[in-house]
Formats: sequence, structure tokens, C-alpha cells
Amino acid sequence: MPSYNVVPLQRLIENFEKLPGIGAKTAQRLAYFVLNMPKTEADDFAKAITDAQEKIHYCSVCCNLTDKEKCPVCSSATRDHSSICVVETPRDAMAMESTNEYKGTYHVLHGAISPLNGIGPDQLKIKELLVRLNNNEVNEVIMATNPTVEGEATAMYISRLLKPLGIKVTRLAYGIPVGGDLEYADGVTLARALEGRTSL
Amino acid sequence: MPSYNVVPLQRLIENFEKLPGIGAKTAQRLAYFVLNMPKTEADDFAKAITDAQEKIHYCSVCCNLTDKEKCPVCSSATRDHSSICVVETPRDAMAMESTNEYKGTYHVLHGAISPLNGIGPDQLKIKELLVRLNNNEVNEVIMATNPTVEGEATAMYISRLLKPLGIKVTRLAYGIPVGGDLEYADGVTLARALEGRTSL
Repeated sequence: MPSYNVVPLQRLIENFEKLPGIGAKTAQRLAYFVLNMPKTEADDFAKAITDAQEKIHYCSVCCNLTDKEKCPVCSSATRDHSSICVVETPRDAMAMESTNEYKGTYHVLHGAISPLNGIGPDQLKIKELLVRLNNNEVNEVIMATNPTVEGEATAMYISRLLKPLGIKVTRLAYGIPVGGDLEYADGVTLARALEGRTSL
Repeated sequence: MPSYNVVPLQRLIENFEKLPGIGAKTAQRLAYFVLNMPKTEADDFAKAITDAQEKIHYCSVCCNLTDKEKCPVCSSATRDHSSICVVETPRDAMAMESTNEYKGTYHVLHGAISPLNGIGPDQLKIKELLVRLNNNEVNEVIMATNPTVEGEATAMYISRLLKPLGIKVTRLAYGIPVGGDLEYADGVTLARALEGRTSL
């Protein structure tokens, strides 16, 4: 029924369909919801989209997202700047923050080494990490890349780069997740948990 | 970690969270996706939202959504203007259109009678329907409200209003859905299917 479509509505639906995990039916539902929003809310939504794109860029130090020159963590005086936690994406940094345990700084690589997808070390923010290590007194670099083949490869690559500089490089512990069930843990994870057992 | 948030990103996440069926994690994922969109696409998305709000209003005849004075169905010369299909929402009209079987016009009530939610006949576009019936030569009004208590009540209410005007009022057939399974059909639906059985 192409001739009976309302063009602006159709455009809104198509825009929602572009988002990940949003199918045709959901896009329709979201578009009608936006249509019925108060005008101020819809304007706010539209402005949030353009603002996010215009104002957010990479922190000049850690490459995390920020709307200032330096991100809040890098410009904070209360954080421990001698420790750098290397993560793949800004969302990983956010996840680490949610622990409320880590008081150091971050470095966001914006990806992981993945030759199959044509992503080599040069596409990642590794140069920026080396610059930080040369300038500052950093005691420890914590590799917090994902426990995948790509994440492992990236962690290994960076640790080999840093070893000659005499910097302590550590990796997040592997093991069974808290609240998990041994029965459903895979063999590799269990083997790593056994390997890394601690004394009680 | 309120002090470490990037304000424009947080605002975008909050806007996504307002949408139905979008939780905190999905909102975050969508916000990061929008952030990584090409600028032209993001601008297009933002414009689609404001445009939809500004340009779309009710058709002056059938109260469906349109960006013109009359909706494409009402202004079409090829549609049968002697038949009106009464639906609750614009999405119901869209669903009817997807059958490619119906060639008449629509009337969108924008809701159903629901005393519990404080929605009476006056809150619906029933007056607008009566105006259409007075002006035009309408042969049939097809009640296509939802098969719910509210939809039924609305269909009954309108049919009683129209009976004195000598207009034929019909209701969509009840029965087992095509491709369904008798085993899983509920008793009420099966009883209605039996009641409305047709000769082969």
C-alpha cells in the first residue's frame, strides 16, 4: 500500500528500523509512541540525538567518550593515575565503573585486534596508550579486554609491547561467575577457575 | 557513578529509556549505536522525530493520521466511499490495509469506550463519524474494533447509535485464526467459530 503511506511517519519508522534489535513491528510501535509524546519531549529526544553526535568526542588522554577536553575520570584529582585499565569499548569502562571498586584510570582501545575483520593494532588506540606510558609514572596496566579470542590476542599483543618498558601488566581473573552454577559452567572456564584457585 | 557520566550521552540514554519496551541496557546499546552513526543519518533521525510531530495530524474526514488536509484513502477516487471501516487506532487501519482486500474508507476512533480508564464516547471520534454519515451516502459501517471487552462495548454503542439512521452495521467475523491449532484455541473462540460456521 505504498500510495497510502504517511511520509513523515514512514520516515520515522524507517529510522527506528535501522537501530540494532529493532524489527518492523517494534519500529512501528516506537514511532507511534513518539508521535503521541508531548511536543517538548519529542523535541528533547531529537535534540539529544544531535547533541550527542556534536558534543561527544574522545578524551584527549584515555580515548573514552566525553563532552569536555578530558573525561571526568582523567581530570579527577581523586583517581589513581598510576593505574590504567585497558578496555575495548566505552561500555566496558562503564561496566568497570559499576563495580565501584576500581579507582584508577581507563584506556579505551575502541575495538580488539581481529585480522578476519581487517582490524590490526594500528586501528586501535594503542599509540595513545604508549604516549601515556612515556609521559606519566604508571605502575600497573590492567588488561580488561573481553575473554574472547580477539580480546585475548589484544591483551597478549599489548603486554608484549609493555614488558620491555618495565611496567607491570596484569589480566582480569578468569573463573566461575558469582551466582553461577558449576553444572552449567563450560569446561574451559572451570579449568581456568581450578588453575587460578586461591587459598582460603 | 554520577560524577563520571557524559551528560549528552546520559540524556540520550534517558530518552531511549522512555520508549515502550526499552530497558536500561537496550537504551544504552541504542545510544551508543546512534553515537557511532554517520552524522547525516543521526541528523536525519532527529529531523524525522520533529517532522513527524509537526507535520502529522488527523485527517479532517476519517481522523486517521496524515500530513495533508485529507488522508490518502479519503482523497482517493478509486476507494469505495460508501463503506466505512471503524477502527480503534491508526495501526488497526494499517493492519486492515495490509490485507489488500478492503477497498472502502476508514474511521479512526482513537480509543475504545473504557469507563475504568475514564474514556467515554465523548473522548472518541464518534461525533465525526455521525457527521460523515449525515453528509454522505454511506451503505455500510463495518465495526473493526478489537475483540476485547472495550472494543465490543464500543461496537455495540456505535451500532445502537446508527441503527435508527437505517445504515447497515456489520462486525468482523469471529473464529479460529488461519494457521492456528484447534487444540490451542480457547473455548470462547471455538464457540464463536461454531456459531458462525458456513456451508461448504
